[in-house]
Amino acid sequence: MTYERKNIAATSGYVPGEQPDAPGVVKLNTNENPYPPTDEVMNALRAIDSEALRKYPNPTAEPFRKTAAQLHGLDPSNVIATNGGDELLRLAITTFVEPGAAIGTAEPSYSLYPVLAEVHDSPIHRVPLNDDWSLPDDFATRMNDAGAQLTFVVNPHAPSGSLRNVDVLAAIAGQLDGVLLIDEAYVDFVDPARQYDATTLVRERDNVLILRTLSKGYSLAGLRFGYGLGAASLIGPMLTKTRDSYNTDVVAQTLATAALSSRSEAAKTWTAVRNERDRLSTALREMGMNVPDSQSNFVLAAAPETLAGGARAIYESLKTQNIFVRYFDRDRLRDRLRITIGTPEQNNALLDALRELTNH
Amino acid sequence: MTYERKNIAATSGYVPGEQPDAPGVVKLNTNENPYPPTDEVMNALRAIDSEALRKYPNPTAEPFRKTAAQLHGLDPSNVIATNGGDELLRLAITTFVEPGAAIGTAEPSYSLYPVLAEVHDSPIHRVPLNDDWSLPDDFATRMNDAGAQLTFVVNPHAPSGSLRNVDVLAAIAGQLDGVLLIDEAYVDFVDPARQYDATTLVRERDNVLILRTLSKGYSLAGLRFGYGLGAASLIGPMLTKTRDSYNTDVVAQTLATAALSSRSEAAKTWTAVRNERDRLSTALREMGMNVPDSQSNFVLAAAPETLAGGARAIYESLKTQNIFVRYFDRDRLRDRLRITIGTPEQNNALLDALRELTNH
Repeated sequence: MTYERKNIAATSGYVPGEQPDAPGVVKLNTNENPYPPTDEVMNALRAIDSEALRKYPNPTAEPFRKTAAQLHGLDPSNVIATNGGDELLRLAITTFVEPGAAIGTAEPSYSLYPVLAEVHDSPIHRVPLNDDWSLPDDFATRMNDAGAQLTFVVNPHAPSGSLRNVDVLAAIAGQLDGVLLIDEAYVDFVDPARQYDATTLVRERDNVLILRTLSKGYSLAGLRFGYGLGAASLIGPMLTKTRDSYNTDVVAQTLATAALSSRSEAAKTWTAVRNERDRLSTALREMGMNVPDSQSNFVLAAAPETLAGGARAIYESLKTQNIFVRYFDRDRLRDRLRITIGTPEQNNALLDALRELTNH
Repeated sequence: MTYERKNIAATSGYVPGEQPDAPGVVKLNTNENPYPPTDEVMNALRAIDSEALRKYPNPTAEPFRKTAAQLHGLDPSNVIATNGGDELLRLAITTFVEPGAAIGTAEPSYSLYPVLAEVHDSPIHRVPLNDDWSLPDDFATRMNDAGAQLTFVVNPHAPSGSLRNVDVLAAIAGQLDGVLLIDEAYVDFVDPARQYDATTLVRERDNVLILRTLSKGYSLAGLRFGYGLGAASLIGPMLTKTRDSYNTDVVAQTLATAALSSRSEAAKTWTAVRNERDRLSTALREMGMNVPDSQSNFVLAAAPETLAGGARAIYESLKTQNIFVRYFDRDRLRDRLRITIGTPEQNNALLDALRELTNH
């Protein structure tokens, strides 16, 4: 017999991007930073001793939270450390959403949100984005009408890479009856000239949670470390009640603290990614693809059917050449490829293969 | 305003044992193994390169699951890796318990179980243990009458250290309508002469989950790594649906695999702990404490009021001397101390302090 709950039996779970292990693969499908973590991180790893492993870690990752608070001009009570950004998404649902109450999201966006809603036995309320991937003006009203207790907005948007300005988010937060979670997984790659900083909302409002991760900006996808920023009244119940009691381990805490402390080193990789993002976007457009401006470490490239058979055919062809990009078999995305920005060499390999495929 | 769910607002969360950081502390309060992890684990740590940190880990910890399956004579589909054993407890609740349906436990036991039930908005059904900490004969019937969809039994029992034999657990599993989770956090310290092995139940039954952790036996409390064993029909939905999509990181996966692979080295620490457990138990009894036989890496020592003012007073006095043991202000435990088995030096420091306090 099955012991699964009905809603769990009815769901099919999240399918992560392929993680090919073969040597020589050009892996541009899961948005890893193509450059290694900082020397400070590697030195911190080498310095971990057996005594640190033997004992329980700091239950709330206090040293990390102090470092993060200082970086953002906040208090440690405004910071929670999590086992990857994904844990923060789950904790926000567990803490702020009654099972059965709606969870809001813009469509398309991160495909994990609906899966987490299903596990919680809550309906997901999807509001379609405008054609240019911007949020519709009545976004918050529609979430309130649906009774959404928590709304996810990913910014920069995935999978398009487009960035909403803080005033747009501030207006939504001001209108929403529930909590707004701004998923900033890719924020480190935003052009500094845009002067984007949503942490002001954390200081001003009691219903805004910001998600950060070290997976992308700090080249630490293997480490599973994220954090949340928010009013102490939002962070508190997750920190002291719904979080697993030792949710982050001593190695991850130590390396994450070293990563934030060496932020200026990591920032050099962000500049490099931005430069390659410009070059790659231009080259893809020259091939006939439609590529909206991205403020992230990936681009979303639309390929017409006339171009080497279209997006899915290109994805399959590249895969046979050990070049992995991401294809989503979903509405509004079937004619597109999401391509992670790699090193110049990786991007050249991709462009060479694409030129071959498209006869450009 | 508060955005917390009602059941979350009403709960107060789990309070972990004190984690004093000062040098020179004799820390016998949170059941860490007093000996370091194996050399193989430390070598595996030193060998982790930046590329492993940069990329996403194996989503389901496949290499670890293969190693664990081989160790237990099972298939990888019978194994789930978790971020500490605590994650498995939560996943079992999320997967097998409808919110509002009962969760069963024996009383007293691990104080995290009721906290997890509160977060899930489920009542906890507590059945008191017999005076000798054994399970009452009608345990399963009472769980079924309460409609428990999941029942936790910790074996060896915490905080007494007493071990139930497999036939007792088999009978309970056979009677239960729901899932039985056997929390074997301390199983590595069981005397091999007892020939205890509950993994047979995983092969025979589709409603038995076994929890293992590397925190205690493998001296890796800092790493947060546990695993679950069960029928593929129980493990499957946790592995593919309710688990956070990358729930264990590459460092933890690598070190955990190295730990199981060097089990015979770790087992030497288990023998040392058993020897010290015998010596400490005898010495505490000679002081006038009642200490039931323990098969774990701690003992539960009952101190009468006539002995240095009783358990709480002794706990407080020891603390002023930087010797930490665990005191539970709970029914049936107020006259007792839970003492982790330390190194011979740590145990001697404790015994010296106790002899001083009790004039023995």
